[in-house]
Amino acid sequence: MKIVRYENNPIITPMDVTPHREDFEVIGAFNAGVIEYEGETLLLLRVAERPINHDDTTIKAPILNEQTKELEIIELSLDDTRYDFTDPRTIRHAGEDKSSFCYLTSLSYIRIARSSDGKHFSVDPEPFIYPTDKLETFGIEDPRVTLIEGTYYIYFSAISPVGVGESLVSTTDFKQITHHGMIFAPENKDVLLFPEKINGKYYALHRPVPKSTGKPEMWIAESDNLLYWGNHRHLIGLRPGMWDSGRIGGGAVPFKTDKGWLELYHGASTDNRYCMGALLLDLYDPSKVIARSTVPILEPEEDYEVEGFFGDVVFSCGVIVKGDVVRMYYGVADTSMACAELSLNEILHSLEYDKEMVMSK
Amino acid sequence: MKIVRYENNPIITPMDVTPHREDFEVIGAFNAGVIEYEGETLLLLRVAERPINHDDTTIKAPILNEQTKELEIIELSLDDTRYDFTDPRTIRHAGEDKSSFCYLTSLSYIRIARSSDGKHFSVDPEPFIYPTDKLETFGIEDPRVTLIEGTYYIYFSAISPVGVGESLVSTTDFKQITHHGMIFAPENKDVLLFPEKINGKYYALHRPVPKSTGKPEMWIAESDNLLYWGNHRHLIGLRPGMWDSGRIGGGAVPFKTDKGWLELYHGASTDNRYCMGALLLDLYDPSKVIARSTVPILEPEEDYEVEGFFGDVVFSCGVIVKGDVVRMYYGVADTSMACAELSLNEILHSLEYDKEMVMSK
Repeated sequence: MKIVRYENNPIITPMDVTPHREDFEVIGAFNAGVIEYEGETLLLLRVAERPINHDDTTIKAPILNEQTKELEIIELSLDDTRYDFTDPRTIRHAGEDKSSFCYLTSLSYIRIARSSDGKHFSVDPEPFIYPTDKLETFGIEDPRVTLIEGTYYIYFSAISPVGVGESLVSTTDFKQITHHGMIFAPENKDVLLFPEKINGKYYALHRPVPKSTGKPEMWIAESDNLLYWGNHRHLIGLRPGMWDSGRIGGGAVPFKTDKGWLELYHGASTDNRYCMGALLLDLYDPSKVIARSTVPILEPEEDYEVEGFFGDVVFSCGVIVKGDVVRMYYGVADTSMACAELSLNEILHSLEYDKEMVMSK
Repeated sequence: MKIVRYENNPIITPMDVTPHREDFEVIGAFNAGVIEYEGETLLLLRVAERPINHDDTTIKAPILNEQTKELEIIELSLDDTRYDFTDPRTIRHAGEDKSSFCYLTSLSYIRIARSSDGKHFSVDPEPFIYPTDKLETFGIEDPRVTLIEGTYYIYFSAISPVGVGESLVSTTDFKQITHHGMIFAPENKDVLLFPEKINGKYYALHRPVPKSTGKPEMWIAESDNLLYWGNHRHLIGLRPGMWDSGRIGGGAVPFKTDKGWLELYHGASTDNRYCMGALLLDLYDPSKVIARSTVPILEPEEDYEVEGFFGDVVFSCGVIVKGDVVRMYYGVADTSMACAELSLNEILHSLEYDKEMVMSK
């Protein structure tokens, strides 16, 4: 498949973003939601910041105090054997499951970057959506944005000590936002709202992370008002031995093609290499899977994709499609933003349509 | 607190239930939903059955084949070191987290028991709600039933290899049922629907089990149609060192008192001793917690509560309240059903109203 990465990749790096506090530094500007608004391309950046720390024997973790709405800084000694500091993203209790954590090493929030050509962006000076309540005290991550009937719905992972769920806000002007609370309870991430009603219902993809049985896989739910969701059904599973054997989740907002709804999703192998692939869903019933990528449509290959805060990651939260051109914006290595252009027809032709190969369960 | 256990406890045991297949045996008749219907008390029993096995070197696990709708029997050698057989309820992959499993040792479904005096029950000869689809292949468990505007809503944990969630059916006659699919996505259990709209919305308690951060704690959600749910909020947490330090979840369907909505919930200590306690919620906004039990209102003490398939468990899914008398039906030791009468006033007076003591987070 022909992939045209932008020459100025990465198009946004942490250095392009001023921290929102003098005592913080920006370590990530990545996994952005994407939308066109008033002639511009907007990237809703996930900006990750951490307290500046000149002491290499300690680590500092920021947490929102839900009462005062101020950030508090937890400081831990790297010698503290109660904790495991091996994952750069999280602090774990020693001996606990690798997927669990008790603190994050940075706080993420959402900030807007704007461009008239889709390649060169300027980053707004202030945060756009910032953690505000009890369910967001560890930050908000990985926004997606869907335009539905004149309103922009922006949703993101809300992280706190009580769990990771998916919360929703809406806006019509990218200035004022209305909060709608948590729409998918813990543990859930990677929600994607379809841009229109299908046979009278709204649909969303989501990615629960169950504990006692089941894996991080893709589900589909329905709604009549975008705020309340039900009829949860399992959509696709992991595929052992393949590129999406470890975890999968929705990526870009699904868009309509002649062949069906195309969802560009992320899959990670069991050794945490994140790639992008495609999933084709029935136009009139998106709970029906038509086809799926056997091999990734995009995988980490360039230096800026392979190396970074958490390397070997390409992770798209949104695309802009014009005719045959799919302009995929994607986070790289949990650090920066990149963009590549792919051919819609090539993606559709690359898919596996055999039922047994498509589903894992 | 004065607790009057019924003299004929346990009021229903596995021996009172004929297996639904000749090659199966009933090992549990417990954790029943409770409702009054046409002058009778109905218990919606969780009946657990397993394949009869005369070979003490093997274990057999039943699974519904989602295509054929027939049960299949997995047979494993107890010498098979790939598995861990130490929990009588589950089969785990060796070395995996204690809360995870890959098979259940029994299949649960729902069966009705009927009584005219509330003490002596006869069990229907056939299953009432039986696993039917992909999300129920390991069975359905722990039903609750709420009468709302003339319809009985019955909801239960749906267990399958893709996760444990909460599904809903409804009935008006306890014969015909309408399936409404999964209303709370994995991992979730212990959903409780409030019996009426409160300030224009339906409410439910639920109990997510998050994986990466957070504990098995109680949340509250809202709805306008009972099928789709949102605005998930964390309600109460575990209390280290207390009777509800390990896991908590809704128990009986909440009922109205002068002081607020009373929810009789279960809490387990970290060593899996399951007790019942009480939670008082604001009449006009049940997301506001007024009071909570510092000590249990009922704990496993009698032989039939302490010993059984999984001992040291009292677990109520429903009560019938007449004046000051709370008739609490409860599962004992994951084996049988018992009943005890408590005083509503004594429960209300026993609660801790101090805010700090009530909330954990």
